[in-house]
Amino acid sequence: MNTTVGEIAALVGGTVLGDASVRITGLNGIREAMPGELTFLADSRYLRHLETTQAAAVLGSRELRDASIPIIQVDDPRQGILRVLLRIQQDLERAPEPGMHAAALIHPCVTLGKGVVAGPHVVVEEGAVLGDGVVLHAGAYVGRDATIGPGTVLHANVTVCSRVTIGARCVINHGAVIGSDGFGFARHGNVQIKIPQVGTVILGDDVEVGANSAIDRATFGATVVGDGSKIDNLVQIGHNVRIGKNCIVCGNAGIAGSTVLGENVTIGAGAGLTGHIEIGDGASVAAYSGVTKSVPPGCTVFGYPAVELERGRRMQGSLRQLPDALRRIKALEARCAQLEGQLHGTPEDDS
Amino acid sequence: MNTTVGEIAALVGGTVLGDASVRITGLNGIREAMPGELTFLADSRYLRHLETTQAAAVLGSRELRDASIPIIQVDDPRQGILRVLLRIQQDLERAPEPGMHAAALIHPCVTLGKGVVAGPHVVVEEGAVLGDGVVLHAGAYVGRDATIGPGTVLHANVTVCSRVTIGARCVINHGAVIGSDGFGFARHGNVQIKIPQVGTVILGDDVEVGANSAIDRATFGATVVGDGSKIDNLVQIGHNVRIGKNCIVCGNAGIAGSTVLGENVTIGAGAGLTGHIEIGDGASVAAYSGVTKSVPPGCTVFGYPAVELERGRRMQGSLRQLPDALRRIKALEARCAQLEGQLHGTPEDDS
Amino acid sequence: MNTTVGEIAALVGGTVLGDASVRITGLNGIREAMPGELTFLADSRYLRHLETTQAAAVLGSRELRDASIPIIQVDDPRQGILRVLLRIQQDLERAPEPGMHAAALIHPCVTLGKGVVAGPHVVVEEGAVLGDGVVLHAGAYVGRDATIGPGTVLHANVTVCSRVTIGARCVINHGAVIGSDGFGFARHGNVQIKIPQVGTVILGDDVEVGANSAIDRATFGATVVGDGSKIDNLVQIGHNVRIGKNCIVCGNAGIAGSTVLGENVTIGAGAGLTGHIEIGDGASVAAYSGVTKSVPPGCTVFGYPAVELERGRRMQGSLRQLPDALRRIKALEARCAQLEGQLHGTPEDDS
Repeated sequence: MNTTVGEIAALVGGTVLGDASVRITGLNGIREAMPGELTFLADSRYLRHLETTQAAAVLGSRELRDASIPIIQVDDPRQGILRVLLRIQQDLERAPEPGMHAAALIHPCVTLGKGVVAGPHVVVEEGAVLGDGVVLHAGAYVGRDATIGPGTVLHANVTVCSRVTIGARCVINHGAVIGSDGFGFARHGNVQIKIPQVGTVILGDDVEVGANSAIDRATFGATVVGDGSKIDNLVQIGHNVRIGKNCIVCGNAGIAGSTVLGENVTIGAGAGLTGHIEIGDGASVAAYSGVTKSVPPGCTVFGYPAVELERGRRMQGSLRQLPDALRRIKALEARCAQLEGQLHGTPEDDS
Repeated sequence: MNTTVGEIAALVGGTVLGDASVRITGLNGIREAMPGELTFLADSRYLRHLETTQAAAVLGSRELRDASIPIIQVDDPRQGILRVLLRIQQDLERAPEPGMHAAALIHPCVTLGKGVVAGPHVVVEEGAVLGDGVVLHAGAYVGRDATIGPGTVLHANVTVCSRVTIGARCVINHGAVIGSDGFGFARHGNVQIKIPQVGTVILGDDVEVGANSAIDRATFGATVVGDGSKIDNLVQIGHNVRIGKNCIVCGNAGIAGSTVLGENVTIGAGAGLTGHIEIGDGASVAAYSGVTKSVPPGCTVFGYPAVELERGRRMQGSLRQLPDALRRIKALEARCAQLEGQLHGTPEDDS
Repeated sequence: MNTTVGEIAALVGGTVLGDASVRITGLNGIREAMPGELTFLADSRYLRHLETTQAAAVLGSRELRDASIPIIQVDDPRQGILRVLLRIQQDLERAPEPGMHAAALIHPCVTLGKGVVAGPHVVVEEGAVLGDGVVLHAGAYVGRDATIGPGTVLHANVTVCSRVTIGARCVINHGAVIGSDGFGFARHGNVQIKIPQVGTVILGDDVEVGANSAIDRATFGATVVGDGSKIDNLVQIGHNVRIGKNCIVCGNAGIAGSTVLGENVTIGAGAGLTGHIEIGDGASVAAYSGVTKSVPPGCTVFGYPAVELERGRRMQGSLRQLPDALRRIKALEARCAQLEGQLHGTPEDDS
């Protein structure tokens, strides 16, 4: 990035207070910014760092007026930063080499859209369908009869197994596996017999899957992730799970087989959901929670076993008082004994 | 799948009630089934969906008699479905191209069984031993002097490190790593010195390892997984862990170094076991539990720190009553004070 | 390994009690050792196994005198074993084939140090810098403009994304991903808009990253791991996390975005840290804990939500007493009612 305060103000529709000719070479947090970098204030808690920042300029709200460095005032600082980030991305990203790398192995019986790009050591098996503008980075693998929708990107070393369907404009991050066998065994005595996993995985449009995550194929039918849902790194999605539209599943979370998520559900980092339950539309699971029962729409749950958030907080709060409560119970027992003694009789004597 | 109700009845040893000539194109759950698909009833909770299912026919127990679609009655519906799944698998699965792909790199000093198959970009290093019928999918890596038993399948992008031994008929799913270095460091002041990890990993026969799981090699000796044990996706097995026969380790679980599992142990999803403990034969760890002590044979533990299941449930149940209990303690303190006042004296005054 | 008790004693600076000519073929635990193997006693709890061990000799402290097998006495048994392990490692490890494998793809515009080794199917993109003695194992991927410091090893199927910087003498284990996109989205109504992740990852010197772990690039600026820090398998490090020097992060742990760790911090297995908090120098997080607030330097926290260790233990201990406490509260209520009855009046009647 090599621009000026004035050019950034024009990009974000902002007003400059101070020297618009100051050069800007990058973007960084208010504490991390180096000389020449632009910083921003989207949260008033960071205002105190404005005096000591080394940044060359600051982007903030229309209320931000006093600073020793040039200010770019905008209506919505978060929106402004998003535009700056998109601009930096344009500068940084170079389009991958067009066409198929000489060391990519594309089976002759593959349906190829326009402008498909495949890096070195890519493998696309027989019967696969690659939509227009699909980008397959180095080492990506697409199994037999799999379908990759237009504009979707498979990053390096992604594995998409046979018959899996991925929608348009998806981003599958490095090392993710889509369509591995579900974990299904039938016990005969002590021996586990593998149940064939003949279903598939269907990802909708605009889905993102994080690095080294794994989404298992269904026993039959499909494991489904709805349009617009975003899955973070190292997430495990079991067979026959159905995730609705626009859900968020954070890192290290796990969802066991046949569980169903509605739309706009948020699953916090490290949370685990047992199998065969339903999470209603708009519900949230707090990070590191273990969910053992279905969750109604709009409800937030917390803890293990997870309970409704406010109730969970009360339980946690009361747990903090418990050591003291145990002392108070002991004191009460002594006081009762004293009172019973003072009445010179046992309860049975009373008439 | 393109068959009829009658043919499926013959396959599963069942009796048809209704039109045996109805065509069947697939298998699906009672709520998910589309026209033309077979569904099944193995659990009476789903009986209510029979009226509204779109399925073309239903497989169920000998008791199942009334339905608007043809019924296939069998003695054991689960067993029947397993047979149908195996039939579908036969239809779907095409044998991989026999022999070695031109882009597979097999070192000349490798011991090769009969009928070994290797896909593109497979690497097998010097001294490795591949048993009869081993299948190495695209991008699988077999390190120096590793041994892969007969009939074992390494899926795409699996890494088997040097000197690791894998038994017969194992399935190692995509992206799994077998034999990475154990996490062992010796602290010298603030600096961590790496302890060489010179041991290995030994997987028995009929072991399954899930996608993107990691099993570390031992510091010395071996990390061991017994015959018939099944490990799900994203599971971490530390160095020198010893897992007995026919165990189940569910997704996202982690087992720290030198812990020993007996036979037929079940580790629930997301559970974590500390190092250097023993889990007895037939014991179970509930999902999302953290186990900090050894568990006796046959015992089920729950929670963090994990305790015996019934005790853990009582503790959880009593925690739910705690906010109310705190109110009751406060009320008791008031009542005691009142009683003490009514007796016109403090306990010290009493004689 | 093929040596004698005497040669090992010379290696570790030890004194032999017994026959120094006994042959030694390997090293193993006192219970696992086979005839011909050396074992050791670094922990007195294992002393009882000395009578029944099959080992050919035992390495122990200067106090160890009585055994039916030869003893190698040393000042520090752990240090002695470390030396034996290093010796075994020298025997086992064969240097990788020097130079670039014919099936490695190194872009012509790459800065190459001396003695760089690249295995088959390695890809190094344009603009990358590889320091002296870098080793890239089969299938490792180095993105555009990434820098790998001298002596660093990328194991099989590691992905280092564009512009990432890795220091000297690092070990990146199999399947790890360094520099995948951070998980950042801006909600517009129900739709999640991807926030461009234009930052990078900087690993210091002597960092180790475990198998299938994932470290996300920063939104802007850098996700940082300090010199000497060690990260285990299947760990998730979010965008803009800053980890100080000589930290330990155990398996399955997760650190959410923008959280800062000081130096010498230990994060236990399976622990999760929420975003935007600070963990002070020398602090520890117990395994399977969920940390929701900043932790002061030197403090150990436990549980979810994590609290200071001693307090957490008291809370856990009191929880174990809770079912009994509830019974005692009920008994107290009965005793109070009895006392109130004995005083022939309600509190309101008292004057």
